[in-house]
Amino acid sequence: MTTTTNPPLHLRTAALADLPAIAAMLADDVLGASREHAADLSIYENAWRQMQAQGGNQVLVAVLGQEVVGCLQLVFIPGLARQGALRAQIEGVRVASAHRGQDIGERMFAFAIELARAAGCRLVQLTTDKRRTAAHRFYERLGFEATHEGMKLELDAAA
Amino acid sequence: MTTTTNPPLHLRTAALADLPAIAAMLADDVLGASREHAADLSIYENAWRQMQAQGGNQVLVAVLGQEVVGCLQLVFIPGLARQGALRAQIEGVRVASAHRGQDIGERMFAFAIELARAAGCRLVQLTTDKRRTAAHRFYERLGFEATHEGMKLELDAAA
Repeated sequence: MTTTTNPPLHLRTAALADLPAIAAMLADDVLGASREHAADLSIYENAWRQMQAQGGNQVLVAVLGQEVVGCLQLVFIPGLARQGALRAQIEGVRVASAHRGQDIGERMFAFAIELARAAGCRLVQLTTDKRRTAAHRFYERLGFEATHEGMKLELDAAA
Repeated sequence: MTTTTNPPLHLRTAALADLPAIAAMLADDVLGASREHAADLSIYENAWRQMQAQGGNQVLVAVLGQEVVGCLQLVFIPGLARQGALRAQIEGVRVASAHRGQDIGERMFAFAIELARAAGCRLVQLTTDKRRTAAHRFYERLGFEATHEGMKLELDAAA
């Protein structure tokens, strides 16, 4: 038998104090690097307050020892389609670059899906950039099917 | 010159009284036919109440004379990614079958995008079933880009 010195992975809802670590992880990504601005925390704090005010909109984090090593946003969206199905939507999935390949993503998704099921969701959905081919394989292993096109329209702030 | 006898198209936020017409439209669709159960209004009323309670989650309708001829769901989703960008998400788009090809979809989307912009959204997003090829061309004409895979995981209610 071997003993492991790895601390256990803890999964929980994020708190405001996790925001610097989350912002840093959002930026620590091949696509996120150009999209994020982790040094200006106030923009993330503002978004955080909007999320809390809406309800059904939370960030989950994976914590190893004292270090936040993964995050995702989980939103419950009630709607009329599919016989009034409640959906769970996942956005902004990140695992810290030094901790990839350790099943942290799998553990975060298992936790998110468990929360979605407990909330009565009938569907979990996400969109993933077509350039993230490794992510597609990851999601397919979890049982997701790429049945839909994910379409985006960026709005010009100046217009 | 010709005169038209068509009543003007009116776009507005849906009210509870529109729910029977909306449920009928959700079912009046090649994919929706098997997914919806318009005869049981209570399931849609329950979802409607959840949407109202959440906030930032509304249905828009297109009305021709007294008839509801189109609908879509518009949800504003605050989040941390993309520098705390507010997103607008569109679900459950329908135009009544007798009124297709009359630019009602275009008009509804213009209204939805106007509301999204006014709310401060930086992105409008939707997923569309890969079998809806005519819908993809419609969204691309409006400026949407199919940059993402739309992935879904159905949760077994019994599990």
